[in-house]
Amino acid sequence: MAGTEFRERYGPWALIAGASEGTGASFAMQLAEKGLNLILIARRAGPLDRLADEIHAAHGVQCITATIDLSADDAAQRMAEVAGEREVGLLILNAGADPNGSMFLDNDLANWDALTTRNVNCVMRACHHFARPMRDRGRGGIMIVGSGACYGGLPGIAIYCATKAFDLVFSEALWAELRPHGVDVLSYVIGRTDTPAHRELMEARGMPIPDDLAHPDDVARLGLDRLPHGPIQNWGLADDEAGYAGSSAAARRQRVLAIAEMSAAYARK
Amino acid sequence: MAGTEFRERYGPWALIAGASEGTGASFAMQLAEKGLNLILIARRAGPLDRLADEIHAAHGVQCITATIDLSADDAAQRMAEVAGEREVGLLILNAGADPNGSMFLDNDLANWDALTTRNVNCVMRACHHFARPMRDRGRGGIMIVGSGACYGGLPGIAIYCATKAFDLVFSEALWAELRPHGVDVLSYVIGRTDTPAHRELMEARGMPIPDDLAHPDDVARLGLDRLPHGPIQNWGLADDEAGYAGSSAAARRQRVLAIAEMSAAYARK
Repeated sequence: MAGTEFRERYGPWALIAGASEGTGASFAMQLAEKGLNLILIARRAGPLDRLADEIHAAHGVQCITATIDLSADDAAQRMAEVAGEREVGLLILNAGADPNGSMFLDNDLANWDALTTRNVNCVMRACHHFARPMRDRGRGGIMIVGSGACYGGLPGIAIYCATKAFDLVFSEALWAELRPHGVDVLSYVIGRTDTPAHRELMEARGMPIPDDLAHPDDVARLGLDRLPHGPIQNWGLADDEAGYAGSSAAARRQRVLAIAEMSAAYARK
Repeated sequence: MAGTEFRERYGPWALIAGASEGTGASFAMQLAEKGLNLILIARRAGPLDRLADEIHAAHGVQCITATIDLSADDAAQRMAEVAGEREVGLLILNAGADPNGSMFLDNDLANWDALTTRNVNCVMRACHHFARPMRDRGRGGIMIVGSGACYGGLPGIAIYCATKAFDLVFSEALWAELRPHGVDVLSYVIGRTDTPAHRELMEARGMPIPDDLAHPDDVARLGLDRLPHGPIQNWGLADDEAGYAGSSAAARRQRVLAIAEMSAAYARK
């Protein structure tokens, strides 16, 4: 979609939560290139402000930043306050990875509460706030960036998988509810992408960095292209490619076990 | 599984949340018949106390009741307090239906917060509390009663579907994490069952009561039989029967649209 058409459909402001680096930063730069003004939100101020300066210098669009911890209970409310009366035509929720890396019972409940607050409550509340005016205007877009973890539970990342499943299914329903009103919703299930967060995670777990990581610019580009074609886009898969049979008990069991076995084999090495 | 074997594996106490009627009451009666003591939890005191009296009279087991609103933020903590030092070998989370019946944007956020608190946070927190001692003991069972809504988003019940997807995927992961420790986890995806809650829901929406509703006793019996065969049991489906391809974007889109169209056709009547 050309810049002008994109801006008319999803402008004049885009809000990106989880914007400081990686895929979020690529979304920001590409949207600025299309002429959208930006509200950039992340936990850390430094990288966010550098990105905003860079974007403003390159494309001249307005660029507001705010540091918000998306796992705080008032995160969505603060996002709403930062946006104020600005017309947000595009909401991209690009929350990051699971920082825990432990079995469910081997971690404090407070950490799982924080993860559900970020990936369930904040996502739900931000959509509730920003989608209403989109529906009234009869245009707009919402992208919830997900992970293949959404398709089934895996040991070691139980709550992460479950929150991503929430986001996936919520996106589907919201897509169905908003499409008659001209608002696009996309659950963008991305794969392993070459982001600082992903590299940190792999290093923390003592795993090698694979050489087939996707480039965040490519990931962002496909996501923006696919916005009108929800409810789901899987990175690297054509629209009708299926990985496994989703409601077969046997297939789901087999999938969990196969991946659990791979993880265990890796841990034994 | 015979009563003695079942009691040794999942006794001496079972806690059922959402126990006052329907499938929850059937679980309670069948567990008492197997000789387990019961902690019964529901929102309303009346039906709960009547059930406890009936169970005690019929089977002589101990039966404690507590009225807890499972959508309150402290619900799991209160469940833990009610159980106290009792050895809970079986946890059944049988939270009820979606009381909202509206599009996501047409309802106050507070109602969606309550639904996620009940189906996401309370489920997660109760499992965190009760599963730890089960793992230490090397035995026990957890059943999270779900709905076919878990398999994908549908308009009109967006948050309900999303919370049930959370529960499904969380159960899968927990099953994988706890099976090496002798603890069984089952996501029991039930269908349309002849319960007071289901009848109320159908009547509230002006829909006819179908004549093929499952009997709650049959539903409870299958669930208890299948406890060792997780992570998923779909009511009415054999283990390897699949309804649709879960990670195919096209298949998921088609599923949402087909069901949305059926609902719309019904609403037009």
